[in-house]
Amino acid sequence: MSDKINKKFMKMAIAKAKAGIRKGQTPFGACIVKKGRVISCEHNTVWKSCDITSHAEVHAIRKACKKLKNISLEGCTIYSTCEPCPMCFSACHWAKISKIVYGARISDAKKSGFNELNISNKVLKSKGRSRVKIVPDFMRRENAELFMLWQKLNKSKIY
Amino acid sequence: MSDKINKKFMKMAIAKAKAGIRKGQTPFGACIVKKGRVISCEHNTVWKSCDITSHAEVHAIRKACKKLKNISLEGCTIYSTCEPCPMCFSACHWAKISKIVYGARISDAKKSGFNELNISNKVLKSKGRSRVKIVPDFMRRENAELFMLWQKLNKSKIY
Repeated sequence: MSDKINKKFMKMAIAKAKAGIRKGQTPFGACIVKKGRVISCEHNTVWKSCDITSHAEVHAIRKACKKLKNISLEGCTIYSTCEPCPMCFSACHWAKISKIVYGARISDAKKSGFNELNISNKVLKSKGRSRVKIVPDFMRRENAELFMLWQKLNKSKIY
Repeated sequence: MSDKINKKFMKMAIAKAKAGIRKGQTPFGACIVKKGRVISCEHNTVWKSCDITSHAEVHAIRKACKKLKNISLEGCTIYSTCEPCPMCFSACHWAKISKIVYGARISDAKKSGFNELNISNKVLKSKGRSRVKIVPDFMRRENAELFMLWQKLNKSKIY
């Protein structure tokens, strides 16, 4: 897909992450797209739903499965404001998502204080022999700025 | 904890996995225990809930967070009939679960046809520097038999 199209969907994930920050959630957003159509676009709701697994990507995958009435999201691309953590990367793998486009890195989240398992998507893909395609560091600066906005507004705790 | 106590809770996870198999779900169960009290005990509901993330461990973690009204499950032990996949291992890490006791191995699930990212908990713990304690291969034979029961009854598809 062209950079212009990737930018359009990543901006939707960023806008969703910002909406989450304003509502007291942590600074992560994810948008799942199939054939140019947005299937789901969610922010992290760990605090809102009192569910430690409700990261933006997992949340978006759950919604997409329900919407498509299918546990397979083959042919979908996920735009994630931050490199999916190992939980979210593995959820993408199980869902057979075809491509992950991510912005900031796990190490950026870790620097902001999140208790990340610091294992990159590249390593997980290689060790786990996943077929998912990975586009790293896409609009990294804009995505990393979400952590700064989140810290400035200081509306939610770390975990 | 003593072997006798571990066996008691693992048997509950196995019983739950069997209940899932009979209802057309895949052969996985997980039981979360805190100070000798069962907080949640769930089987995999990927097919039932049309949610690819609803593995037994993730399901049990969600339920436990709700029950304890806390995203931290520190002090809890999870008994899992199979070695948690990387998604579930990472969910345990995020939830700050103190100990994972597992039965069959990821490689056993993979042999049964599940599309596992074949990365062991040992490797994830070491690479991610997680503090979770791991008790591997606990009642492995009884747990591995769940896959055979599931194949025999043939009530649900693979993913």
